[in-house]
This record gives sequence, structure tokens and C-alpha cells, in this order.
Amino acid sequence: MSQILTNKAITSRDKDYSQWYNDIVIKAELADYSAVRGCMIIKPYGYTIWEKMQQTLDKMFKDTGHVNAYFPLFIPKSFFSKEASHVEGFAKECAVVTHYRLKLDSEKKEIVVDDDAKLEEELIVRPTSETIIWNTYRNWIQSYRDLPILINQWANVVRWEMRTRLFLRTAEFLWQEGHTAHATAQEAIEEAEKMLEVYADFAENTLAIPVIKGIKTPNERFAGAVETYCIEALMQDGKALQAGTSHFLGQNFAKAFDVKFANKNGELEYVWATSWGVSTRLMGALVMSHSDDLGLVLPPKIAPIQVVIVPIYKGIEEMEEIKSKLQPLINALKQNSISVKFDDDDKQRPGWKFAEYEMKGVPVRIAVGKRDLQNNQIEIARRDTLEKQLISLDKAVDFIKTLLDNIQKNLFLKAKKRLDANIHYVNTWEEFKGIIETKGGFVYAHWDGTAETEEKIKEATKATIRCIPLNNPKEEGKCIYSGQPSTQRVLFAKAY
Amino acid sequence: MSQILTNKAITSRDKDYSQWYNDIVIKAELADYSAVRGCMIIKPYGYTIWEKMQQTLDKMFKDTGHVNAYFPLFIPKSFFSKEASHVEGFAKECAVVTHYRLKLDSEKKEIVVDDDAKLEEELIVRPTSETIIWNTYRNWIQSYRDLPILINQWANVVRWEMRTRLFLRTAEFLWQEGHTAHATAQEAIEEAEKMLEVYADFAENTLAIPVIKGIKTPNERFAGAVETYCIEALMQDGKALQAGTSHFLGQNFAKAFDVKFANKNGELEYVWATSWGVSTRLMGALVMSHSDDLGLVLPPKIAPIQVVIVPIYKGIEEMEEIKSKLQPLINALKQNSISVKFDDDDKQRPGWKFAEYEMKGVPVRIAVGKRDLQNNQIEIARRDTLEKQLISLDKAVDFIKTLLDNIQKNLFLKAKKRLDANIHYVNTWEEFKGIIETKGGFVYAHWDGTAETEEKIKEATKATIRCIPLNNPKEEGKCIYSGQPSTQRVLFAKAY
Repeated sequence: MSQILTNKAITSRDKDYSQWYNDIVIKAELADYSAVRGCMIIKPYGYTIWEKMQQTLDKMFKDTGHVNAYFPLFIPKSFFSKEASHVEGFAKECAVVTHYRLKLDSEKKEIVVDDDAKLEEELIVRPTSETIIWNTYRNWIQSYRDLPILINQWANVVRWEMRTRLFLRTAEFLWQEGHTAHATAQEAIEEAEKMLEVYADFAENTLAIPVIKGIKTPNERFAGAVETYCIEALMQDGKALQAGTSHFLGQNFAKAFDVKFANKNGELEYVWATSWGVSTRLMGALVMSHSDDLGLVLPPKIAPIQVVIVPIYKGIEEMEEIKSKLQPLINALKQNSISVKFDDDDKQRPGWKFAEYEMKGVPVRIAVGKRDLQNNQIEIARRDTLEKQLISLDKAVDFIKTLLDNIQKNLFLKAKKRLDANIHYVNTWEEFKGIIETKGGFVYAHWDGTAETEEKIKEATKATIRCIPLNNPKEEGKCIYSGQPSTQRVLFAKAY
Repeated sequence: MSQILTNKAITSRDKDYSQWYNDIVIKAELADYSAVRGCMIIKPYGYTIWEKMQQTLDKMFKDTGHVNAYFPLFIPKSFFSKEASHVEGFAKECAVVTHYRLKLDSEKKEIVVDDDAKLEEELIVRPTSETIIWNTYRNWIQSYRDLPILINQWANVVRWEMRTRLFLRTAEFLWQEGHTAHATAQEAIEEAEKMLEVYADFAENTLAIPVIKGIKTPNERFAGAVETYCIEALMQDGKALQAGTSHFLGQNFAKAFDVKFANKNGELEYVWATSWGVSTRLMGALVMSHSDDLGLVLPPKIAPIQVVIVPIYKGIEEMEEIKSKLQPLINALKQNSISVKFDDDDKQRPGWKFAEYEMKGVPVRIAVGKRDLQNNQIEIARRDTLEKQLISLDKAVDFIKTLLDNIQKNLFLKAKKRLDANIHYVNTWEEFKGIIETKGGFVYAHWDGTAETEEKIKEATKATIRCIPLNNPKEEGKCIYSGQPSTQRVLFAKAY
């Protein structure tokens, strides 16, 4: 096992966790910085992972009755004023299109904005699409027969962030946003809750990331929502990461955009709404949930390459011999829908390749030399535990199938164990500050329910209320900060 | 057969071709107008067709060795100045981001652009991504070992068009853009030609749209290309539509962005480039290639619903009986990867449904009533020819499989026949003007090879040179306009 990565050494987590994250994103070729402040380039290897996330989610959305559509990138400025809290939440951070033409300045010999081509009304590059979509739904909805509308959109959005980090916080990011319209509050709430379950299922069973489901405090709600549901994950440095949100929007956007329907009695009512989204931020959560100091670790379900075969040989002839002997195995794996790569690149040595595939998080690596073949065996290494085993070639397919399942399960269990070990219950302000400052993790503590206290705790410790978990047990207690009575503990953490 | 569409009557082609097109796009629910000038909404039914196009193309790209990635939406203004002809082609029509914040004007009580948040350098919403991508490739390419780079991107782009039409010409549209980097001119040319073949294959074998492959005249080339390859299709009104382009970019972008590689001898050379793209414009081509006065006609390969079953019944019980009797057929069709919908909507009558599915272009419609079931038969209607046939239930699966293949082939042959019937050879200016004005279609005529003549012909007739077909036969002749000697005929048409 090549523990020393000379080519592409990455900073260890102990030394500098933040740098470790950046190193993995860059050196595993997930993403790259761009010439545009805050905008990233998603490189082919990273994009393939994103495509696999998309495919899985898209199927889950369609299986729950949703269809995809596409709405404009630009939103007229005035739309943002229509929903009062929405404008507060998004106006501060958006890209504004003011002109529609450039021209050549003949004196300066450079290209300049053409002042004659100023837009009458500025256009905002969508930070989220509630406004343009509800402006459209007004024309699509007349009667209860037109409901529900269950639409999802895969799109890019822009939020002008001052401090950016690859995947975690970028000015432009990719996401999906569901926007549904319903005849009753009950149906909309059920939709919002259903999609939260879809996200939790996806996070846990595809990405192997355990999450806590809950609702946000009013302070942390989506701008324009009546209730925001979320899934919260815990990264290896003890900080929380919000991995997905689903909002019950009440009739707020229907009222803002005058969207009414005739119910079965012919009476006009405002339509009920939800919206829900996950983004390329999940790529950051993925990296920080499973990876180690050798590089990326990927759950098999979203690994671009699940099995890599590295031949160990002298001379091309020997390599070709290994290749042809392994061809039946390669074919059998493919027939089992397992993606496999035989690395016949003669320019790199096996040791370099080992380090490279460890860096890229390939779940299973097969190494095979001439002597192995004579013994009818191959060496199989798993990325998650770095364990190696010699396996008879005849039994390899079954072994690998089981191994991939085991790696998927093991990554989840390992992350779940870490999550559970980092949940703390505290009863005093001193305890709270101590845990948040030293250990991090999730902290269950009593809170008096006021936005003021929430804000004070944030100012003092940088910890926020991540959520009030679903089915949270009621418990009498005193707020750790104000000492006022409290009926339940809520979940605090420092967060990305 | 319900020839009269009362609900959603569309204008006939004879009466107003342009209105016919708009009616189909709107009433088949492919797209809708938006509140943003020139930007469209792609509705779920239209988007499903686009998704099917994407899936087929994406597989073709991957089968030819390409991978997907994602580059920023925004491009710094200065990048456009770096490639001289590129700036000419795109600077006139682009959305310019100048600010990154809005604020509430406390006096006016309205939301305004925050002048304190002006960008140092304006950002252009990408009209195409050569500049940002080649600026990135500079960091990715050092040696011949880094080549080729074979990347594709699925993205939205913006070109500020003054006159817009749904799908055909919109300010924002969806597309894919391939951007490849090569060590030799030869390899890049082969890539550009290969992708032209991929596009032609896709147009003809998936969309059932026959195309003519060729190269553009210098005048009509992509801004920054050395050679532009294209596929040209002919719409029902006799106008041409450019359905895809593939560009050999030479070293133009490598020079503009200083992208060099060390060849095997260690010498630095500029990298060779291609780019190629198709867009949601193909949706317009699809509509105008096959549809009729009853609505959309779709090739089975990209139809969201391939078979629809309309039960004819009295009372829900009878409907349920029909449904359960047909369940084995529905299951068998699904097992054959045929998408099928049983329309159990009790709110609409069969006649309304017939018209609706004709409007939406569903290739095969099954109608079945109680008496049909007693006779163990169903009525099968094909959308392309509107023919109906009674078929024994036992033979239905095989019949439908064959029928779907036949419809796919028939649509192509019908369009091919129309294309062939609308190719004209003319030798004089009078003939040329006559054909262009009265019949339209493709016109093969001699041209003296000068941009000046090309421009004059365009001014006089609105016809442009669509392409110089690949493998164009050499033939001595005289230019129809100037009378100067010519060595080959080129393909003229009025175009979208």
C-alpha cells in the first residue's frame, strides 16, 4: 500500500482541515478555480459524480410524480419586490444585467458597454426561481382541475457570495429546484415533507451520508417560506452542513403574484405552494463525509469508476497477456452493471497509479501480475479500509459485487458512528460554549424560542440552531442562555 | 377520426404557416412565452422531448470518447477582445452584468440597483464558451500527454436577439457545446468532421429529419472558425434551417489565450481546437419537419408517450373492466421499453382525448370499447398517416412494435421525399429569383466565390448560401449573378 503520495501530496486533516478539503477537490480533479470571481469549473471527474447524483435524484422525483421543465435565467427586478420577505433574503446578493450590447470604442480601441443599450428594467440572474415561476403559474392555473402542478427544474443559479469555497459556497452553482402548486395547505405540507424524505433517503442510501431531519427556526427559514424543512449532516471537522431544504410556502407567492383557482364549489382561492432544492454543495458534503488523508473516498453508488484494474508487468506483451486473461472478468463485471477500467497506460508505474486511484476514491482496486495469473488469483484492495486480499479469479465477480455493497454500507455506518459520537447534550451555557469551542459536533440544548436569544448565542459562539428535529421529544428545561423556560431541546452547531 | 379540433383549433399551414407553427408550440404545450423579453419557458411536455434528445446525443458523445464538464456562466468582458473575429460576431448581442447588489430605496420604497456595487470589469452572460474554456485549457495543457481534451458541456446561453420566436430564436436557449483540444490540425479536422457525422446521424435516425452536410462560406462561418461544417434541413414552407454546426477553429483560440503544448520533441506548439453544438432550436426543426394541421407529429424515438390507450366506456365500472383486460398488453409493451399511457381521466370524452393526443403527436393511439373486448380486438391508429386498423389483442404487441418502427421510417422517408422534391438546379439569375420567390426550397446554382456576390444575392432575394455540400461535384459554370466563372454549384435557400 503506497501510503506516501509524492506526486500529489495533500495536506492532512490534522494539519489544516480547510486546506485538506481544497487539496482533495483540486487534486482529485473534481473542480477548479476560474477566471471569474467566485465561479468554479466542474471538471469531468467531478461532473460525472454530479451526473450520477442527478440521475438518481431525477428518477426519485419522477417516481414521485414530478416532471421537469425550464424557466428563464433572468427575472425582472420588479418581481423581487412582490414578496416582502423574499426580497430581503435575496436582493443583497445578485448579479444584475443592465445592458444588452457591447461596442468597440474606436478611440480607446477596446470593447466597452454600449450606453445606448440600457435595459428599461434591469434583469436579475435567478438566485432561485419562485418569482418567475409563480408569475407563470398565474396563467396556467384556473381551476382545481389544473392542480397539483408538480414541476422540477435542473438549472444554474447565481448568488453573489463574498467568501467563496469550491462547491460549498460559489457565486454560480448548479441545482434542482422543485416548485409545486396545490389546492390545499394539507397537500402542500405533505409534498414538502415527502420531498424531505426523498432527500434524506438519497443522502443516506446513495451518498452514504447520515442526516438529521428537522425544521428551521423562523430566523433560519427560506425567505418567503412558512416552514422550512431541512436535512443536516455532520462533517469530519465537527461542523454541520445543510444538505437539502424543502419549503412549505403557504399562499405567500400565490398572493404576491395573484394566483387563484376555482375550487369545486366555484369559489376563488389562493394556491398553496412548496419549493425544494439540493445543489452541487452536496459534492462538498460528499468529500468531507468520507475522504481521508490519501484523498477522496466515494460510495460505490456514485463512483464514476467502481473497479480499477492495475496490471503489474514488464513489457507490453505481458500487459496484453494480463489484459486478455482478465477480459472475462471485465465482461462479467460490466454485465453486472459494474463500471470497470483496465488501466493500460504504459507511461505510468503501478505505484503512481495506486496513489492516483486512491486520490480519486475508486472503491475497489485490483492489482494483478504475471505470477498472480499463474496462481489464478488477483489482489483486491478496498478504498474505504485500505484492506487487501488475494482472491481466486473464479470467485472474483461475486466477491466484488458483495464488496461494493459492503463498502457502501460501511461508509454509511462509519459516518453514522461518527455522527452519533458527536452528539452532545448540555444544560448550561458554560458547558455549551465549552463543547462548541473544543469538540464541535451537534449540541442538543434548551432554547427559549426567541429570535433574540438565537442571535445572541450566534454572536457569542458562531453556533446556530441547525434545526428542531422532526418528532423532537418534549422536555421541560431552561434556556441555556436566558434561563427562560423551554419545552424542548433544539440542535445547535457551527455550520458551513 | 376527429378531423375537427374544437377545443384547440390551430391555424392551417396554408392559411398562415408562421401562425401554424406558433399554435402547435403553444397548444401542444411545448413552450410558453415568459415575462422576460425573448426568453421562453419550456413546458414539461416539450422538456421531456428535449430530455430524450439530450439522452440520445449524450450517449453518442460518450461513445465517441467525450466527457461532460461545466464552465462558468459569466465571461469577463476583456476575454471577448482577445479573438478578433469572435468579438465581432458576439459583442453586438449579449447580456452585460454590471452590478452585484440591489437595495431598497427608502424614499421611493422600491428596489433599485446599488451603485456602490458596481463591478470593476463587466461580466458577459456566455453567448458561447470558447473564450472562458480556452482561458482554462491554458492551465490544463502542458504537454502532448495532456491531449486530446474531449469535453462537452450542457448549458444555457444568451444571445440578445431583437426578433425572437419560440425555440427558433430566443434570447436564452439550452444547448450543448463541445470544446476539444488536439496536438495536430489533422486530428482536429477529423474531430470536427466526426461530430458533424454524429449530428447528421442523430437528425436523420432519431429525429427523422433528412439533412444536407456541408461547409459554410467564409461569410457564414462561426466567428473565430477556420472552417464551419453544418447540417441543413428543409422545413415544410421551403425555408432552410441550420440544425447543427461543427467548427475547426485552427489555432485561433490557442493563440488568443496563449495555449501551447510541448510536442514529443519538446518543442512548444499552439494547440488545435474544435467546437460544435446543437440547441433547443432542434425542437423547432422537429415541429416544422413532421407536423400537420391537426398538430404535432413525433417520431417514436423521441415521443414522451409512444402509445396512448383511450377507453370508450359508460360508467367507471366498464372503464375498470377495459383497464384490467388491457393490463397484460400494457405490461408487455412496457417490457419492450415502449412508453404507454392508459388515459383513465373521467372528466373528458373520448373525442376530446383523440384530438388532444393528435395535437400532442402521440405516434400510436389505441381505442377500445366493450364490444371490441368481446371480439378480442382493439383499434390502432397511427398519427403520421391517420390510418386505423382493428387488430386482435393477441397480436397487438408485435403489431405495435413493428408499427412504431414503420412510423419512424415513414416520417424520415416522407421528409426525404419532400426534401428531394424541393431541390432545384438553376442556371440564370431570372430562374433563381423565380424559384426563390415562388417555390422556395434548396437551389443549386453557380457562384463566383466572392463575399461581395454572396451579399448582393442576399440583398436582392434574402437567399443565403446554406453550404457547399461535402463531396460536392466539380462542374464548370458561370455565376448566376456576376457571370464570372465558377467551378461548382453551391446550395442556396432562404433560411430561419
